Amino acid sequence: MADARQYFALPSPFAMKRGGALQGARLAYESWGELNAARDNAVLILTGLSPSAHAARNAIDDTPGWWEDIIGPGKAIDTDRWYVVCPNSLGSCKGSTGPASTDPATGESYRLDFPDLSLEDLGNAAFELARGLGVERLAALVGCSMGGMAALGGMANHPGFARAHVCVCSAPRAQPFAIAIRSLQREAIRLDPNWNEGRYDDEHYPETGMNIARKLGVITYRSALEWSGRFGRIRLDPDDREDDPFGAEFQIESYLNAHARRFTRSFDPNCYLYLSRASDWFDLAEYGGAPDQATAVRNALAKMKLERALVIGVETDILFPLSQQQQLAEDLKTTGTDTTFVGLDSPQGHDAFLVDTGRFGAAIGAFMAAL
Amino acid sequence: MADARQYFALPSPFAMKRGGALQGARLAYESWGELNAARDNAVLILTGLSPSAHAARNAIDDTPGWWEDIIGPGKAIDTDRWYVVCPNSLGSCKGSTGPASTDPATGESYRLDFPDLSLEDLGNAAFELARGLGVERLAALVGCSMGGMAALGGMANHPGFARAHVCVCSAPRAQPFAIAIRSLQREAIRLDPNWNEGRYDDEHYPETGMNIARKLGVITYRSALEWSGRFGRIRLDPDDREDDPFGAEFQIESYLNAHARRFTRSFDPNCYLYLSRASDWFDLAEYGGAPDQATAVRNALAKMKLERALVIGVETDILFPLSQQQQLAEDLKTTGTDTTFVGLDSPQGHDAFLVDTGRFGAAIGAFMAAL
Repeated sequence: MADARQYFALPSPFAMKRGGALQGARLAYESWGELNAARDNAVLILTGLSPSAHAARNAIDDTPGWWEDIIGPGKAIDTDRWYVVCPNSLGSCKGSTGPASTDPATGESYRLDFPDLSLEDLGNAAFELARGLGVERLAALVGCSMGGMAALGGMANHPGFARAHVCVCSAPRAQPFAIAIRSLQREAIRLDPNWNEGRYDDEHYPETGMNIARKLGVITYRSALEWSGRFGRIRLDPDDREDDPFGAEFQIESYLNAHARRFTRSFDPNCYLYLSRASDWFDLAEYGGAPDQATAVRNALAKMKLERALVIGVETDILFPLSQQQQLAEDLKTTGTDTTFVGLDSPQGHDAFLVDTGRFGAAIGAFMAAL
Repeated sequence: MADARQYFALPSPFAMKRGGALQGARLAYESWGELNAARDNAVLILTGLSPSAHAARNAIDDTPGWWEDIIGPGKAIDTDRWYVVCPNSLGSCKGSTGPASTDPATGESYRLDFPDLSLEDLGNAAFELARGLGVERLAALVGCSMGGMAALGGMANHPGFARAHVCVCSAPRAQPFAIAIRSLQREAIRLDPNWNEGRYDDEHYPETGMNIARKLGVITYRSALEWSGRFGRIRLDPDDREDDPFGAEFQIESYLNAHARRFTRSFDPNCYLYLSRASDWFDLAEYGGAPDQATAVRNALAKMKLERALVIGVETDILFPLSQQQQLAEDLKTTGTDTTFVGLDSPQGHDAFLVDTGRFGAAIGAFMAAL
């Protein structure tokens, strides 16, 4: 199948929030639909930590995208009406510039010489892309999970650039439970001797660390409720068991194994570390100019000049708890944004936005249709 | 400080549930109070995965025990009235026989040659200890966390040996979320090259694997709610930070570091693996003789001939969810046991029974006083 990615050259140098700048950096992106003459129908989608720009199938790449049920003609984000753009995040490894890319100054991979990455850099870069495509103002900025924080960061730096915002299973800052999980994921990678301070290669690859990091991710992306119903205490068929007294014995264990196998070699470990740390660092309160964090968040939201917002999440999410989304929605309302809050009881945890697309699609579709 | 542990020689051979037998095995234990003439005031306490037999201070060892606020003269488990016995679990490494002990057949450590360990073996061994101390019937059997499952396993094998049962933050079987967490903890240890199929020594020790396993444990023993209030997004003092771009930056990270440091060298990795796997294996439904698991659990409980029970847990426990305790209490009532259920809103998660001792003590004290 052909590759539908297009590439956008970021302004060079591209200044990074915490210092340093990228030379000759680029974003990979895909798009659906057409920008209209008034240039007011653009929808920008910022992804979670690991997805690529391939959010949905298109004429060039007919494989299903990671949000296939949400984006397309007649779907919740209707590409007959909207010009939809989804970049691979800056700092990622799916075509955009990140720690796995070649540093033009040295001709070698950046690895840990990549400058500190912040979610604001992801948001700023995505906005540059939108501007480069002729968009002066976004009809809607959609941010999923980590992308929701990147969206808030981008809007805090570019007030008024988005008319509407859809915040999907995200938050204005990470709470300590999420930081603890991500810190442990990073530590598992860093403690793998093959990580070697970022200087691994295909033959000496931190497979063990990535395996543990991914399994811990899956555990926190889903929910105990879903797993109790789906796996219970079902054992593996004896024929499927390894000859190892501590090997997988329950279905839940082989499910985790399968998830980890698909991921460990498909995502660059250094990119993972950079994006993970950026997620811990992000705090919208930095933009509020008030010592009290709650006030600071509201101040920051007020500056964004958003007209409308949809904040959606699920009760079973332990990584971005629904209480954070509820508070965000209340804060948006307080600051004058016409805001809809949708709290779903989907059992799939944080990943519900990728799985329970029927309910997410209904809520997002209704919001988008009314824009 | 002197060591208050006493040692009890288990019957030799001591048959294990899944096959094999231990020769010359022993349990370390501590005790408080005196067995009365009627021999009807004995309270046996089965611990969580890692604690020793030192549940409370006594005349020989005046250091505080792991349940110091609950056990003692005039306390919830009143040693002026009760003869309290707490063994170190069979399979552990705090004085009782386990994988780190010497196999008398070879003169070498058992390591992975230790026979398969089941929580029923822990319960059976503890009951042998009680009988050896002159107890014909327990006034109460208290089981905390893993010890709660060991208690149910022991009672399923020895109907009528306990008159009353106190089930603290435990369950009749593990759900897949808990299995997933423990499986990942075991994998982190097993993937550490220094684990070396169990043949580590002090110089080549699976420190990395134990570190990850312990941190993951602490994350699931506590709660997001507690951490949000306690740590928020507080940063470490710059002077306390390592010179490492991915090193600890938030207080929650140094809290995890401190917990892991205290644990990794104080608990034997092979013992950890055996006890962890035993926790996944335990399923009270095995004793119920019915294909339907819910019916099987009730059948198994009915056979225990318990007169009274207290089932206590907390809403924020993600490892042994309160819903499991609520169901257990209902099942005990259904099967004719006079049962009290206490669901607390302690914010400390699974560890609340070790921390929120005021509320646990009040509930346990009221139950014990009425026996």
